[in-house]
Amino acid sequence: MESLKQRRTIRKYLQKDISAEQLNELLATAFRASTVGNMQTYSVIVTRDADRKAKLAPAHFNQPMVQSAPVVLTFCIDLRRFSKWCLQRNAQPGYNNFQWFVTGAIDALLAAQTFCVAAEEAGLGICYLGTTTYNPQQIVDALELPELVFPITTITVGWPDECPPQVDRLPLEAIVHEEVYHDYTPADIDRLYAYKESLQENKQFVLENGKETLAQVFTDIRYTKEASEAMSEVLWKAMKQQGF
Amino acid sequence: MESLKQRRTIRKYLQKDISAEQLNELLATAFRASTVGNMQTYSVIVTRDADRKAKLAPAHFNQPMVQSAPVVLTFCIDLRRFSKWCLQRNAQPGYNNFQWFVTGAIDALLAAQTFCVAAEEAGLGICYLGTTTYNPQQIVDALELPELVFPITTITVGWPDECPPQVDRLPLEAIVHEEVYHDYTPADIDRLYAYKESLQENKQFVLENGKETLAQVFTDIRYTKEASEAMSEVLWKAMKQQGF
Repeated sequence: MESLKQRRTIRKYLQKDISAEQLNELLATAFRASTVGNMQTYSVIVTRDADRKAKLAPAHFNQPMVQSAPVVLTFCIDLRRFSKWCLQRNAQPGYNNFQWFVTGAIDALLAAQTFCVAAEEAGLGICYLGTTTYNPQQIVDALELPELVFPITTITVGWPDECPPQVDRLPLEAIVHEEVYHDYTPADIDRLYAYKESLQENKQFVLENGKETLAQVFTDIRYTKEASEAMSEVLWKAMKQQGF
Repeated sequence: MESLKQRRTIRKYLQKDISAEQLNELLATAFRASTVGNMQTYSVIVTRDADRKAKLAPAHFNQPMVQSAPVVLTFCIDLRRFSKWCLQRNAQPGYNNFQWFVTGAIDALLAAQTFCVAAEEAGLGICYLGTTTYNPQQIVDALELPELVFPITTITVGWPDECPPQVDRLPLEAIVHEEVYHDYTPADIDRLYAYKESLQENKQFVLENGKETLAQVFTDIRYTKEASEAMSEVLWKAMKQQGF
């Protein structure tokens, strides 16, 4: 519990490998996570090879962790293995649709997060790459993912070479609703975001970007409406391309 | 690590409450999980009230855990809170699209799974309800979820009143691919599913359902093509209805 509370994302890694034995034990532990109908509708692609990392890097906007981490794990929705089993057992699979895309994503993400918890408990550091759903087609190509397999998240893993301060989180009351959703009043929003807005690093972030508010850094620079809409189309198209 | 390996899903709970203090500590721990851009694009609805559970139950096909567990947690994608903050800070949010639906789902699921790990370490038992994405509109209605909020998974939580045997998992080599996706040959499928098919409870399951193969129990009874396609439309429609 304490390690869960104290965790922080690690983006700098020692030049030290993770043994296949240790990695496999962590993965086996991850696969004990809950999975719909015990179907395990996911696969994990392990990238250690430098050339393969170089192929993956542009899909992740060349974030340096992709090439500096000893191991990169791409967690994929996988309805292919299960469907192949069905076909080979005189059964007609019907898993090439949106419901199973989402179900496979849930399965894959529960396994991914369990991997991270186990890895952090073993002293490793991890970083999730949200870029996975921004450029899925490039990842499909780099990892040779066939139909009914789709990359949903990527984790870089290695031995920590930094100990960054823990970042802030919203207060519990911002996230938790008793019985029904309690919509936020303007006063709620002011109160719940006050601490985040008061942080020196966030004030600096606003200044550096020449913006008036922290929210504008998100909407105008980090995650713009235009980019989000373009990436929605790319994601949708890639999902269809992979047969869902 | 050992508790992760030994875990099992718990569907029967003691008639014993979980204190608000303990639940809040577990939730606060869960919210330390990684989140895209530190945006925390999720909310959690806590259901303890018997009447509210009764309203939720049909959405989960009346699985008894919904009403017998002291606490039901519905983890939701939430782009509403963040968008409200943006609007209040002279920033134009662009998060009502498919990319952020998926990103919010990732955020919510990492928090959900971290909650489960922490809860199990504290001696609690959990069960995920995959039905959440089958009947999202009923859940939206029961929990009064407004635009840009969407239920992605549900967890029932309580003190275990059973200790079921651990269920099987596919061998590691079924899930893990080195460097690129290695597609499965018919011989691979036979080998990887042999243990699952050999289990007495699965043989019994095939017999009871009057089927030839275990795969047919999945395709013809548990998760049919027709139902999956219908539920895909329902899910898509509910996603649009909630403004994504």
